[in-house]
Amino acid sequence: MAGLRVHNFAVSLDGFGAGLEQSVEAPLGVGAEALHEWVFKTRTGRAMIGQEGGTTGIDDHFLRAGEDGIGATIMGRNMFGPVRGPWPDESWRGWWSEEPPYHHPVYVMTHFPRPDLPMDGETVFHFVQGPPGEVLAMAVEAAGGRDVRLGGGVSTVRAFLAEGLVDELHIAIAPVFLGVGERLFGDGVPPVGYACDPIVAGEGAAHAVIRRA
Amino acid sequence: MAGLRVHNFAVSLDGFGAGLEQSVEAPLGVGAEALHEWVFKTRTGRAMIGQEGGTTGIDDHFLRAGEDGIGATIMGRNMFGPVRGPWPDESWRGWWSEEPPYHHPVYVMTHFPRPDLPMDGETVFHFVQGPPGEVLAMAVEAAGGRDVRLGGGVSTVRAFLAEGLVDELHIAIAPVFLGVGERLFGDGVPPVGYACDPIVAGEGAAHAVIRRA
Repeated sequence: MAGLRVHNFAVSLDGFGAGLEQSVEAPLGVGAEALHEWVFKTRTGRAMIGQEGGTTGIDDHFLRAGEDGIGATIMGRNMFGPVRGPWPDESWRGWWSEEPPYHHPVYVMTHFPRPDLPMDGETVFHFVQGPPGEVLAMAVEAAGGRDVRLGGGVSTVRAFLAEGLVDELHIAIAPVFLGVGERLFGDGVPPVGYACDPIVAGEGAAHAVIRRA
Repeated sequence: MAGLRVHNFAVSLDGFGAGLEQSVEAPLGVGAEALHEWVFKTRTGRAMIGQEGGTTGIDDHFLRAGEDGIGATIMGRNMFGPVRGPWPDESWRGWWSEEPPYHHPVYVMTHFPRPDLPMDGETVFHFVQGPPGEVLAMAVEAAGGRDVRLGGGVSTVRAFLAEGLVDELHIAIAPVFLGVGERLFGDGVPPVGYACDPIVAGEGAAHAVIRRA
């Protein structure tokens, strides 16, 4: 049975997975770029933005593990872009280049319909409505026996956690404080029934992997 | 200048430093004993409860560091005991034995007066009122040039953090979820002006040391 996995979801020491005032300039909200500083010190993270070099230690290992055996991705609309409300046109094509780093079907959850958006390198963005369980069923079918990866943002991960649909959740605890923002955990999320592996410290973040117990 | 330090303050992955419904049977609240499982696997932690054996690795190192160079302790009243409201009598003498593990003056913050309580081994409990800054001044004087340690509970640490009085805060992130409880961080605590060392993973908890930047 294919599983649903979250990887490399960065949270601050004070528990925030995103800041406030998200925009084109600050996709994760004000100050929240600090959550991902550890990513861009690794070889894998630097390659994602076309740069060479970088560390190949523990942080890099966790970053790469997020790609293993994934056949489809689900994300919230705000991870796809900064547009809110109805799509004014189809000019926004994601935060990425014309060849996004997915190379498989990506389900973007939104209340506003939009035609499928095929990109270079076999990524196709599908804009879907419906509750988490229905979207997961679509993604599982598209993944062809591989696992489904759940991207952000915070509210999307919380929605799937609240329904007990997440099999594995890897959080990267960044040694920073945001002060305000969106909390990943609390108010019943995660529900009971998850256990955490021993925490592993990387070069720039600490890694906690939470699994369905 | 003597500093104010918090050590080995355990928080859950969801950010809680204590649970709800604190009582004699569950001093940290329901389910919160899991926050300290890592302590009692170490040699130092086991010695605290009169047991032998235990690990001597990273967790033990952090536990011992909390004792170094401390000349006085401040704690909230709920860390001293489960009694709420006015003291009905003086029969409650702390969670510890007749020889508490402090061996120096301990300032217990409470709105309800009570005479000094000298114990075996040079621990004296002083019951004090007043804002954090005043209590800190008393403790600094008593510490005779050594640092002052700030114990719990959560609300006590938050009060000192909110006023910028804490110089160093070591939190031990336990790989557990409490779901509900008292949050250590949030709503402006810690204030700006703190930076975190790289997180270190021990055998049973991950350690983050936060210092005044």
